[in-house]
Amino acid sequence: MSSAISPTRNDDYPEWYQQVIKAADLAEASPVRGCMVIKPWGYGIWEKIQKDLDRRIKATGHENAYFPLFIPLSYLEKEAAHVEGFAKECAVVTHHRLEEKNGKLVPTGELEEPLIVRPTSETIIGESFSKWVRSYRDLPLLINQWCNVVRWEMRTRLFLRTAEFLWQEGHTAHATKEEALAETNLMLKVYKECMEEALALSVLTGEKPEHERFPGAEVTLCCEAMMQDRKALQAGTSHYLGQNFAKASNIKFVTESGTEEYAHTTSWGVSTRLVGGVIMTHGDDDGLRLPPRIAPKQVVIIPVIPKPENQGSVLEYAEKVKSAISDEFYNGEKIEVQVDTRDMRGGDKNWQWIKKGVPVRIEVGPRDVSEDKVVLYRRDKEPKEKSFMTIGEAKGSISDILNQIQANYQADARNLRETYTRSDIENFNQLKEFFTPKNPEKPEIHGGFVLGYFFDSKEVADKLKELKLSVRCIPFDQDGTEGTCLITGKKTKIKAIFAKAY
Amino acid sequence: MSSAISPTRNDDYPEWYQQVIKAADLAEASPVRGCMVIKPWGYGIWEKIQKDLDRRIKATGHENAYFPLFIPLSYLEKEAAHVEGFAKECAVVTHHRLEEKNGKLVPTGELEEPLIVRPTSETIIGESFSKWVRSYRDLPLLINQWCNVVRWEMRTRLFLRTAEFLWQEGHTAHATKEEALAETNLMLKVYKECMEEALALSVLTGEKPEHERFPGAEVTLCCEAMMQDRKALQAGTSHYLGQNFAKASNIKFVTESGTEEYAHTTSWGVSTRLVGGVIMTHGDDDGLRLPPRIAPKQVVIIPVIPKPENQGSVLEYAEKVKSAISDEFYNGEKIEVQVDTRDMRGGDKNWQWIKKGVPVRIEVGPRDVSEDKVVLYRRDKEPKEKSFMTIGEAKGSISDILNQIQANYQADARNLRETYTRSDIENFNQLKEFFTPKNPEKPEIHGGFVLGYFFDSKEVADKLKELKLSVRCIPFDQDGTEGTCLITGKKTKIKAIFAKAY
Repeated sequence: MSSAISPTRNDDYPEWYQQVIKAADLAEASPVRGCMVIKPWGYGIWEKIQKDLDRRIKATGHENAYFPLFIPLSYLEKEAAHVEGFAKECAVVTHHRLEEKNGKLVPTGELEEPLIVRPTSETIIGESFSKWVRSYRDLPLLINQWCNVVRWEMRTRLFLRTAEFLWQEGHTAHATKEEALAETNLMLKVYKECMEEALALSVLTGEKPEHERFPGAEVTLCCEAMMQDRKALQAGTSHYLGQNFAKASNIKFVTESGTEEYAHTTSWGVSTRLVGGVIMTHGDDDGLRLPPRIAPKQVVIIPVIPKPENQGSVLEYAEKVKSAISDEFYNGEKIEVQVDTRDMRGGDKNWQWIKKGVPVRIEVGPRDVSEDKVVLYRRDKEPKEKSFMTIGEAKGSISDILNQIQANYQADARNLRETYTRSDIENFNQLKEFFTPKNPEKPEIHGGFVLGYFFDSKEVADKLKELKLSVRCIPFDQDGTEGTCLITGKKTKIKAIFAKAY
Repeated sequence: MSSAISPTRNDDYPEWYQQVIKAADLAEASPVRGCMVIKPWGYGIWEKIQKDLDRRIKATGHENAYFPLFIPLSYLEKEAAHVEGFAKECAVVTHHRLEEKNGKLVPTGELEEPLIVRPTSETIIGESFSKWVRSYRDLPLLINQWCNVVRWEMRTRLFLRTAEFLWQEGHTAHATKEEALAETNLMLKVYKECMEEALALSVLTGEKPEHERFPGAEVTLCCEAMMQDRKALQAGTSHYLGQNFAKASNIKFVTESGTEEYAHTTSWGVSTRLVGGVIMTHGDDDGLRLPPRIAPKQVVIIPVIPKPENQGSVLEYAEKVKSAISDEFYNGEKIEVQVDTRDMRGGDKNWQWIKKGVPVRIEVGPRDVSEDKVVLYRRDKEPKEKSFMTIGEAKGSISDILNQIQANYQADARNLRETYTRSDIENFNQLKEFFTPKNPEKPEIHGGFVLGYFFDSKEVADKLKELKLSVRCIPFDQDGTEGTCLITGKKTKIKAIFAKAY
């Protein structure tokens, strides 16, 4: 059977990914190196993700605020590990004016101190925190920011790794290590719930090994999801920063007993990368499949107009169906329905919406008008599988149908991760074999997650790098048994997830 | 009577503005020149404005998208008037890396072509439009973007004029001039409705004279609001760009008859400046007054706990009041209620919330618990004016009370504008006198809007500049009578609004 996307996932997964983005009209490259244009359907998904996550962030007591886009160069230098991690590739503003010289515009007005376009905002937000925090009564300070950030990446891929991207970054300050660690864990849980409930991803949570930590963090927790090519996607991270950034930014407070101490801070973020994760988790060879909770429209109505004389009655009927269905609720909000009135063949429209991944398509034609019926297609079923029903039946069942689709995508993601997670690999040779394609000329989809014994060390990190592998996380769930590290053979009671990653 | 804000509006209006921002904890200056930190209460207002306006923008058929932060220098040069207007003061990215040299971080990795941090996005969005528009079937193209922009302003003032600010910028392309002009007018109407219904501003709409147009526009429409110091605030603009930008960006389409034409484009925007407009329209000598529609919280509950033994029962009762009231709806959404449980004197809390402008304050103390009562204060009344009522009465009337407050603020704004708009000024001397304070040593609040005859010319613009005046707009409503221009004495049938402006 032919598919709407060429190549298929099996034929060439990276190229399939690009083609789905194109076919679903999600985003495209821009003339600015590494920066993308997020098109309306792609941005609509991000808006849905934002709305869901923002609600959860506020429900856990955080408030949104906004801090400057620019960071003075000297701020970046305040935290040693941080500057090491972020000074490498960033956009540097050096001038504040353009003037015409010999018919050409040239930068003038050199700044005394260059400004960095924020790659992350610990240092500039820390400056505010140092003013806002005076006493233990000011703690905890729980702030979140939705914004754009820039990291001058050399190799970019739409949504997954772009020079500019959109994200939220939470920044909090606490009186004690215990409270800051509790916050770090809480926000990881919030991420996991958002990813699983709204995005229908299946994520593993745990801690990063030392060499994979955020620059400047003492603990980095993460959500790792498995994509359909069985690679890992780091979908979100939550960091306990100890007192490192508090010392760098001078965030001090007077305790209840009158002593002065540095605060303990955290930071946590997820980005438009999540849209890439949704594509690679749920897409199939016909294009995108969108979980109803984050679909910009949950239902599209496609009027089929074989003859011009039908147009009036069919369009009128389509609006009637729309108003019946958009009165229904899904996940506490009214269902979002679009009537596609474009002047285009019904079959073409239908395939466009399949590729865009809209959860439910409803076709209405001249015969349906007279019989008060509709034809309903679900994106989680075969493209031609249809149900005939009355408007009343569609109205009565739409919320259930959307729930089923959401649940089916969740189950698919969970099955994928469980099916391709191996816990029986005992040594380096087995590990290497598992991650080696049978046909190196045209590598098939292979590998997965390996849960195996791990002794945290630089040696492990380096050796894994040779195989283009990494430790994705040390899962929170540990059985406590002892065994030998897959890489070094050293005795250890820790198990980690080994995988290839985006 | 003493007031919570010092100085008062009459004593020193600009300083009063700064003090209200501080007292209401809305925003503060940052270490980055001209960039502000928007604090949670200020950002909460912006979120409310965004939500209201976004709904209106979508309801009129526009879709959100996202375009790059950076604009290649050569793009800015494409439109002559545009580069003239925006190249002057902008942030220029020239390098993409930092390296340590002699113990100091210095910019390296010079870019082949400098990048401008967007001051507005006509040119970069135009590049996408030129790819998206092929045929008349692709038109109209109706796009909106929520983002940050940077203009290197020399003199900045929180919210009103900052180097970085947040805004939305709409960009649309149309097949004909008529359609593009209709869009330009429609979006001005959308702005006016949002400003009047949600922000409770009173705005005058009209067209800018030639010398006040957006650089590159053929028509600039605007909303002008009067602040309490009787100066004008340009609150939003909507531009018909003709085919200027379409030619610069090569946005061409094939018409129904097969010919090729340039599209007609528009752009329109409002920004975080609106928060400044809200402060200066509704604030009083006790601080901010927030229209309920854009208040981050509509109701705050203040538990009064005279003795520690009351704490449990009073806090429990406060939560009971909260759950009763937050079940009610205002403007189609559940009412947002906060219980202020901070360990602080009740009187201090009360004044903090007055200064923050929360529309309704509800005090609950030990006696209220036993009597099932609450004490309700409204921000549109005197600080001590209170109403005693049962929880049931509060629940039953809260939505009406919020509607009354919103309506009162709207009436106040309208009265202000109407009271200080003069239409009896006939010549230059009268105009000059109207805008001259009686006491130049300590100028009192004076002036206002003058509706008078106007003959559009450079001479007028220059002469007004000497008086620090400008033509704010040529109102859409014209009576068509003939008279003599206030500045030049030339015969004209056009009347304009003359004012001092922010």
